[in-house]
Amino acid sequence: MKGAPGRGASGATGADMAVVVQDVARADRDVIAALGEAGVATVHEAQGRRGCLASHLRPIWPGARIAGSAVTISAPPGDNWMLHVAIEQLRDGDILVLAPTSPCEDGYFGDLLATSARARGCRGLVIEAGVRDVRDLTAMGFPVWSKAVSAQGTVKETPGSVNVPIVCGGQAIAAGDVIVADDDGVCVVRRDEADAVLAAAQKRLAAEEAKRARLAAGELGLDIYDMRARLAAKGLKYV
Amino acid sequence: MKGAPGRGASGATGADMAVVVQDVARADRDVIAALGEAGVATVHEAQGRRGCLASHLRPIWPGARIAGSAVTISAPPGDNWMLHVAIEQLRDGDILVLAPTSPCEDGYFGDLLATSARARGCRGLVIEAGVRDVRDLTAMGFPVWSKAVSAQGTVKETPGSVNVPIVCGGQAIAAGDVIVADDDGVCVVRRDEADAVLAAAQKRLAAEEAKRARLAAGELGLDIYDMRARLAAKGLKYV
Amino acid sequence: MKGAPGRGASGATGADMAVVVQDVARADRDVIAALGEAGVATVHEAQGRRGCLASHLRPIWPGARIAGSAVTISAPPGDNWMLHVAIEQLRDGDILVLAPTSPCEDGYFGDLLATSARARGCRGLVIEAGVRDVRDLTAMGFPVWSKAVSAQGTVKETPGSVNVPIVCGGQAIAAGDVIVADDDGVCVVRRDEADAVLAAAQKRLAAEEAKRARLAAGELGLDIYDMRARLAAKGLKYV
Amino acid sequence: MKGAPGRGASGATGADMAVVVQDVARADRDVIAALGEAGVATVHEAQGRRGCLASHLRPIWPGARIAGSAVTISAPPGDNWMLHVAIEQLRDGDILVLAPTSPCEDGYFGDLLATSARARGCRGLVIEAGVRDVRDLTAMGFPVWSKAVSAQGTVKETPGSVNVPIVCGGQAIAAGDVIVADDDGVCVVRRDEADAVLAAAQKRLAAEEAKRARLAAGELGLDIYDMRARLAAKGLKYV
Amino acid sequence: MKGAPGRGASGATGADMAVVVQDVARADRDVIAALGEAGVATVHEAQGRRGCLASHLRPIWPGARIAGSAVTISAPPGDNWMLHVAIEQLRDGDILVLAPTSPCEDGYFGDLLATSARARGCRGLVIEAGVRDVRDLTAMGFPVWSKAVSAQGTVKETPGSVNVPIVCGGQAIAAGDVIVADDDGVCVVRRDEADAVLAAAQKRLAAEEAKRARLAAGELGLDIYDMRARLAAKGLKYV
Amino acid sequence: MKGAPGRGASGATGADMAVVVQDVARADRDVIAALGEAGVATVHEAQGRRGCLASHLRPIWPGARIAGSAVTISAPPGDNWMLHVAIEQLRDGDILVLAPTSPCEDGYFGDLLATSARARGCRGLVIEAGVRDVRDLTAMGFPVWSKAVSAQGTVKETPGSVNVPIVCGGQAIAAGDVIVADDDGVCVVRRDEADAVLAAAQKRLAAEEAKRARLAAGELGLDIYDMRARLAAKGLKYV
Repeated sequence: MKGAPGRGASGATGADMAVVVQDVARADRDVIAALGEAGVATVHEAQGRRGCLASHLRPIWPGARIAGSAVTISAPPGDNWMLHVAIEQLRDGDILVLAPTSPCEDGYFGDLLATSARARGCRGLVIEAGVRDVRDLTAMGFPVWSKAVSAQGTVKETPGSVNVPIVCGGQAIAAGDVIVADDDGVCVVRRDEADAVLAAAQKRLAAEEAKRARLAAGELGLDIYDMRARLAAKGLKYV
Repeated sequence: MKGAPGRGASGATGADMAVVVQDVARADRDVIAALGEAGVATVHEAQGRRGCLASHLRPIWPGARIAGSAVTISAPPGDNWMLHVAIEQLRDGDILVLAPTSPCEDGYFGDLLATSARARGCRGLVIEAGVRDVRDLTAMGFPVWSKAVSAQGTVKETPGSVNVPIVCGGQAIAAGDVIVADDDGVCVVRRDEADAVLAAAQKRLAAEEAKRARLAAGELGLDIYDMRARLAAKGLKYV
Repeated sequence: MKGAPGRGASGATGADMAVVVQDVARADRDVIAALGEAGVATVHEAQGRRGCLASHLRPIWPGARIAGSAVTISAPPGDNWMLHVAIEQLRDGDILVLAPTSPCEDGYFGDLLATSARARGCRGLVIEAGVRDVRDLTAMGFPVWSKAVSAQGTVKETPGSVNVPIVCGGQAIAAGDVIVADDDGVCVVRRDEADAVLAAAQKRLAAEEAKRARLAAGELGLDIYDMRARLAAKGLKYV
Repeated sequence: MKGAPGRGASGATGADMAVVVQDVARADRDVIAALGEAGVATVHEAQGRRGCLASHLRPIWPGARIAGSAVTISAPPGDNWMLHVAIEQLRDGDILVLAPTSPCEDGYFGDLLATSARARGCRGLVIEAGVRDVRDLTAMGFPVWSKAVSAQGTVKETPGSVNVPIVCGGQAIAAGDVIVADDDGVCVVRRDEADAVLAAAQKRLAAEEAKRARLAAGELGLDIYDMRARLAAKGLKYV
Repeated sequence: MKGAPGRGASGATGADMAVVVQDVARADRDVIAALGEAGVATVHEAQGRRGCLASHLRPIWPGARIAGSAVTISAPPGDNWMLHVAIEQLRDGDILVLAPTSPCEDGYFGDLLATSARARGCRGLVIEAGVRDVRDLTAMGFPVWSKAVSAQGTVKETPGSVNVPIVCGGQAIAAGDVIVADDDGVCVVRRDEADAVLAAAQKRLAAEEAKRARLAAGELGLDIYDMRARLAAKGLKYV
Repeated sequence: MKGAPGRGASGATGADMAVVVQDVARADRDVIAALGEAGVATVHEAQGRRGCLASHLRPIWPGARIAGSAVTISAPPGDNWMLHVAIEQLRDGDILVLAPTSPCEDGYFGDLLATSARARGCRGLVIEAGVRDVRDLTAMGFPVWSKAVSAQGTVKETPGSVNVPIVCGGQAIAAGDVIVADDDGVCVVRRDEADAVLAAAQKRLAAEEAKRARLAAGELGLDIYDMRARLAAKGLKYV
């Protein structure tokens, strides 16, 4: 991410803050798809319980499950100009990820922008702010994870940046990182960790399958995971 | 609004706070219906990005779209007596709008009150507090936008006022103002601005239709709205 | 609740905090079932407007209606070990109720624990923290009322207690108390009050039925409940 | 408030939203001063328990007590341009009252603006957003009631309006209304009610003085206010 | 607590909800005083990290440190009538503890009630709602821990209960329990555990004194508490 | 930050998550001191309005102003073990910065840890969680910016990491970054930008001095900054 603001080029003190980074590496498509299959909870565990975005980022309609490469957006509060800029940077399979530079819940995004983003291959939006036209977005099947639903409109006065490192939902996200999102929320996987995380996720899924059958048969986790001695050692008493 | 509390008659200092204003002008029915068709986001933009109620007022079930004239209610915290009073003031097509005099999330309204309100022509409820019986309200198709769902009951001890100016969801609302509500939230249109706002809304909808087709075809907002030069002038750089 | 922590045994100052109380009395099964039929709002009113848990405890999917006996869990923040311990204590028809010892919204519970709990007869979970795998829990029809949906994982390092008195959603809950939960939220009924509350609830339901018909016919609550004179006496004026 | 936006001129739908109303009537100076002496709690009670702004508006330093005429500001989120415009409209004894058009907590105001405002006779600021330079503001003795303290800077790109009706802290406020603020928060008194409210406040203060002495001597409110019979009638039981 | 509501008498379903329990046992005065000396953090640890009230209960002025026996109040939202009733039940050294029956931040308590309470020996107030007249309360040196400061007035219409078990700040509190409060917040100690908790607290304080000196001299907790091996065993790596 | 978790070594999926990075570069001491002199608001503006931590991080006592190099801590919720580990990594002039891995407000830090940290040269603590012993910390003059004050104790069971990149208050922070904190909150400056930011801050301070004098003399910002024409061009109207 050399020369980009956020982590900052030397001497960069605001004058050159508004940039669009055009050359972004993505993870392998098959790996991304498989991470999406594994889902947020499994991926999060597989990478050592890291990467969950804050739980206030909720889907606007239930049932969506996506994974894709992040096109990141840093935008001023109440100003959605950079979404137009970011849409040009989308490649097929990408996900828009927007963080305002200060807390905001205005409706940055609606059905027109979704129409445009989808035409450029966008799989969905993660936004630490508001969206609107949720009826239309639901009808289109365009998935969004947002902090709020709000019809409050925005202006187009102040540039921000695209594909720079941002913090969204309490997680640092770089352009090209893999975003996994489903009904449990949103998780980020570093691009260069995607392969390793997928391998760990698949191992985890296989292990869960066997346990699920035993638990469904009435066996206890206390026994399957051999917890009784350790609980007793830590002082748990039955009365 | 002469003689009404809230904006206050001269000398009114509490003794005459509990009033019911019975003579309320409404906007034209066809205008109201057309504003409802336009929807919250469009109406809000059409009147200069004004009038959105706070985003914490959420529908209790998805898909409802209504518009109607506000019958306003100012009620004490935890006291739903004035809902019975307000229901008598309803005319066909009205919407109840309740603001408590201090923050409260108790369940002021449930299926019995909804049955009564509907029998008097009420189209829905906007309430900066709680509602209950949401299963029944959903089954009835009675729409509510509320701050909370809560079964917590209320008393009937202290009168409030009906059809006085209130502040609900951060917006000043007068009796007879037009309320538009859908999955994006709630918007208020001043009664005497309803015609002008509708005209602006319809112009906006027509313009959007053409843009949607171009965006769906992959054209960029950057080009359709001619943004590139202005972005460059404001310092946006591509790297 | 003799000898149990929370209300505290004499001299109990932390050393013996982690306990599992195994012998818990439950209310009568038919009474529990009938309370569930009556629903949260009615039960809450029937016991004198007591017992509602905080409104931030919301169902993860709509439409569930359950009642059962509480198996209570006090757990450290970010540590779900005691859920495994609690599941062993479940009897058919029970509901797990978990309160963390300090505010937390991590995902304590997912599809594997739900599979295990269901195999032991569990009807649902009430948790003042987070859950995950909501897609799977929804598909299983396993109902949960939680403060958050979060994929954030937990550890298994520090024991807590099972079937001790807890505070969940602002209500004191003892093991064996009756939990009623539906789309309006969650209500607790003391085990030894269950019969009396049910009787009051059924009386209330019968009374509501008659009123609903009159209200649906357009009669006003002002008249049915004879409110006009009392409102006038309290100063309400019509202008 | 004829012709002003907010309540809206006929046909005003956004094009003419950014206005500065220059001709604002104020209440009598002596009345304003006496309301300030009475303080927020007394004034609020004296006008029938109306007018308190939301409790999240807190003083940035303790001990300030002010009253003055409101110069109102409606500003976009993250844009403090209108503060410069509003300062020109200040007359000696005024108070700036700013509400953003959507939720924001950026630092709109700091020591330079305070220096400028004070030079024009400003007594303080009430802002439903953030302020910064609180160390300097405290040293200057410039009082502020705000929603947040935040160093986050703002832009100067989008005009708003000055001296139009706004909603701040959940209360409708018109230019020229009297603002009373102290450690208990902020209260608004309609300009045309100021005399009547002051009279009621002074009556209330006199009555309190007598009661304070009796209460300090150990007499009970139950007896002074003759509450016992009414409590018993409402069902209170001593056990 | 036999026969009291909250935990409920048999058959009690609302009709007899408003009660005042007059006969309340208190802990030993010297024990209470010594718990106050130990302070909230130490007492909380000494009883096994139990009993802290929610952190949103903050002192209205810094530096107060009190301990006393709880006189509990359950009051409706926006109704402060029971404070007058409770004041009659105060004995020298008591602390008023009020929980509203649903979330509320109105100003239940001000300088007149403080004057009355102090005249009856009250040491302070813990309230999960609002207070007002904070300037006067500060000047009087009357300590309050509250959820909000709010001038919003309350009514006297609906009785509640005094000296019944309540939940305040997420903790179950019975009349006569020991309340300890200081700048760190509020902690409750069960009356029958007070002696044991004090003994544990004093042991803890003695141990801390020795450790403080070693830490001040630059010795590390890692060494004093012998943590290095255990950290290594749990996987901590230095790179 | 090669090889460190957070940004992640290749293949790092949890097994090696708990690390302590020992070799951390700091910025120049004089630069750090000068940034502290400039203060949070100025430094934040000087680097292009970047770097402010969330406004919920508030000082526990007023008046502190510090700057130092970040020793970062990633810790589990309710587990303060890593503070002991981090203290060993402190060099004179450093600031501890702790972010829990999920939202938590427990009291991670009190007077004993402050004594230890100070003995190792620590200037203060920034923590997105709670602290306790605030009376003692205030008496010691040990500054803390925290999300909460809470006596709630923590465990020492699960290692976290020290001097890895974290997100605290919504900002990405690396070990060795410069932290500036005062009554306005907290700001982070990238280590390799510290010189440039200081230069910009000093230029800004010089410019402000001249403006302050003119504003104090009653000159308007509208004139000093030449805003009138631009406001008119953007549509501002005086009525």
